[in-house]
Amino acid sequence: MKYLFGVDIGGTNIKIGLLNTDGEILLNKSIKTNSEAGFDDCFNRIAKVIRKMNIEKNIDENDILGVGMGIPGPVLHQEIVSFFANFPWRKNLNVAKILAEKTGYPVKVDNDVNVITLGEIWQGSAKGYCNVIGMALGTGIGGGIVVDGKLVGGVKGAGGEIGHMTIVPNGKLCGCGKKGCFEAYVSATGIEREAESRLTINKNNKLWDIISKKEKQKVEAKDVFDAAKLKDSFSLDIVDYITEYIAYGLSILLHVTNPEIVVIGGGVALAGDILFDGIVKKIKKYSLLACIEDLKILPAKLGNEAGIIGAAALIING
Amino acid sequence: MKYLFGVDIGGTNIKIGLLNTDGEILLNKSIKTNSEAGFDDCFNRIAKVIRKMNIEKNIDENDILGVGMGIPGPVLHQEIVSFFANFPWRKNLNVAKILAEKTGYPVKVDNDVNVITLGEIWQGSAKGYCNVIGMALGTGIGGGIVVDGKLVGGVKGAGGEIGHMTIVPNGKLCGCGKKGCFEAYVSATGIEREAESRLTINKNNKLWDIISKKEKQKVEAKDVFDAAKLKDSFSLDIVDYITEYIAYGLSILLHVTNPEIVVIGGGVALAGDILFDGIVKKIKKYSLLACIEDLKILPAKLGNEAGIIGAAALIING
Repeated sequence: MKYLFGVDIGGTNIKIGLLNTDGEILLNKSIKTNSEAGFDDCFNRIAKVIRKMNIEKNIDENDILGVGMGIPGPVLHQEIVSFFANFPWRKNLNVAKILAEKTGYPVKVDNDVNVITLGEIWQGSAKGYCNVIGMALGTGIGGGIVVDGKLVGGVKGAGGEIGHMTIVPNGKLCGCGKKGCFEAYVSATGIEREAESRLTINKNNKLWDIISKKEKQKVEAKDVFDAAKLKDSFSLDIVDYITEYIAYGLSILLHVTNPEIVVIGGGVALAGDILFDGIVKKIKKYSLLACIEDLKILPAKLGNEAGIIGAAALIING
Repeated sequence: MKYLFGVDIGGTNIKIGLLNTDGEILLNKSIKTNSEAGFDDCFNRIAKVIRKMNIEKNIDENDILGVGMGIPGPVLHQEIVSFFANFPWRKNLNVAKILAEKTGYPVKVDNDVNVITLGEIWQGSAKGYCNVIGMALGTGIGGGIVVDGKLVGGVKGAGGEIGHMTIVPNGKLCGCGKKGCFEAYVSATGIEREAESRLTINKNNKLWDIISKKEKQKVEAKDVFDAAKLKDSFSLDIVDYITEYIAYGLSILLHVTNPEIVVIGGGVALAGDILFDGIVKKIKKYSLLACIEDLKILPAKLGNEAGIIGAAALIING
């Protein structure tokens, strides 16, 4: 049996896993990112955890295939991080080379949503597929585009930056400064903004009943789906709005790469059938038959370990 | 020197060329498609022209690398034509196999716009680039998406079907039956529809002066650009509308595959600077910096021979 490491760098925590080539996680550790201490400090701690795991499981150095790493930001050639989306670390660092020197193993690095998509192909909902679109509906929207088994990275690492494709010219203001981006509509943040905007003029609904009981009276995307599942017509109408925009945005992608399967993850995807049924129903009117015939649209499967398994998948399939 | 054939199947004519591996066209012949006589009749005539060209140039059979063919319609695995967009021929024919049997040479078949994009990479504006989007603005809109030197075909051959991505939900009716497709806005047909719609309420402009002198008083896309070049404000406003939609539609694609270069061909692209300057200026507001930094947006170079050279490119790069 051969082994590999998966490292998932998040804003708050870094998850590190030791896996075998069957995708089983043998060891799993979470450490604080603590980005203020700097890049070197952080990566020294990652290397230390990797060494410790190796010793703990007493694995022959020759049986370690490498270290895969998922990072929030654009990555070039699976080596160079153009910039870290949330950290004040240096730009254009060859992170793969630096970590390879610190660990002694080959390292591949890629964008976190790209990596998660590879993980879903290796061990999740897209197992066995070669033409896949992965979409993460979280605070923002990320995409992983896989064509013939390979990630579409793009010349500046912006392949799959689907959250920032404009879908409504002069539409809602997005965090990136542009207007009408996909993620301004159907990320968790986008959903919350829409719900809050509607609540300012209508509080006679079950969503407000849920929100008003909270200390901060702040909408979370989950509240909208929860109220909709209680058949609250105000919230069902928001879900209708959300599924319409997801179907529309996703349909665009289907006409570019014509995949076999779309895997949707992230917090918003946890809404389940109420979300997926709407998307599947609505995507038809936006799509040529050839783009939706036999197409599968499924929730992601890997959950909390998606980052680690996906990062490791970089070594297997990247 | 090695040689290859390029075959470009159009609705009216079929162009057949014999090229060398430097991309030079040594012989070039156009025959009628005459699709009513059936697929077999047509392909027998193609095979006959290929044999004759071979004899005429007295080329050793072993120096022929193969035959590339561009076809209007979706193609699977560069072999099977799902359907011919304009002809009543049978569906799912293995055209590559059939023509290989008729000629004795290896054959590769692909969608016509895919093929033209490969041609531009081999001998045209995108020479030397590996991550390219080709866009043909003609009667409809076709796209060729090239990632790391390979065409994105899609599982049903619908990769690059960018003309039918929805860009305006519930927008203009498209010939495909859907609403709001990209090509309903900025194909030649789309431009003509928009101009005609505007002319019904305003005839006090230079575009109408041009149209009214024609026998059929029918707008052609070129008339709009010609009138705009005469500084006609009515037509300049239409060009503004066109470049806005092209910039918007194109920007979407940049966030999916993040290419190095976009090559725009087809009749509409002949408008030249007035079109390209508008697109380049407007695409910024729709795009993340990483998607447009160092991006080239250029007119296609191969003109009338694009189909033949592109088809031959299939054998070189496909």
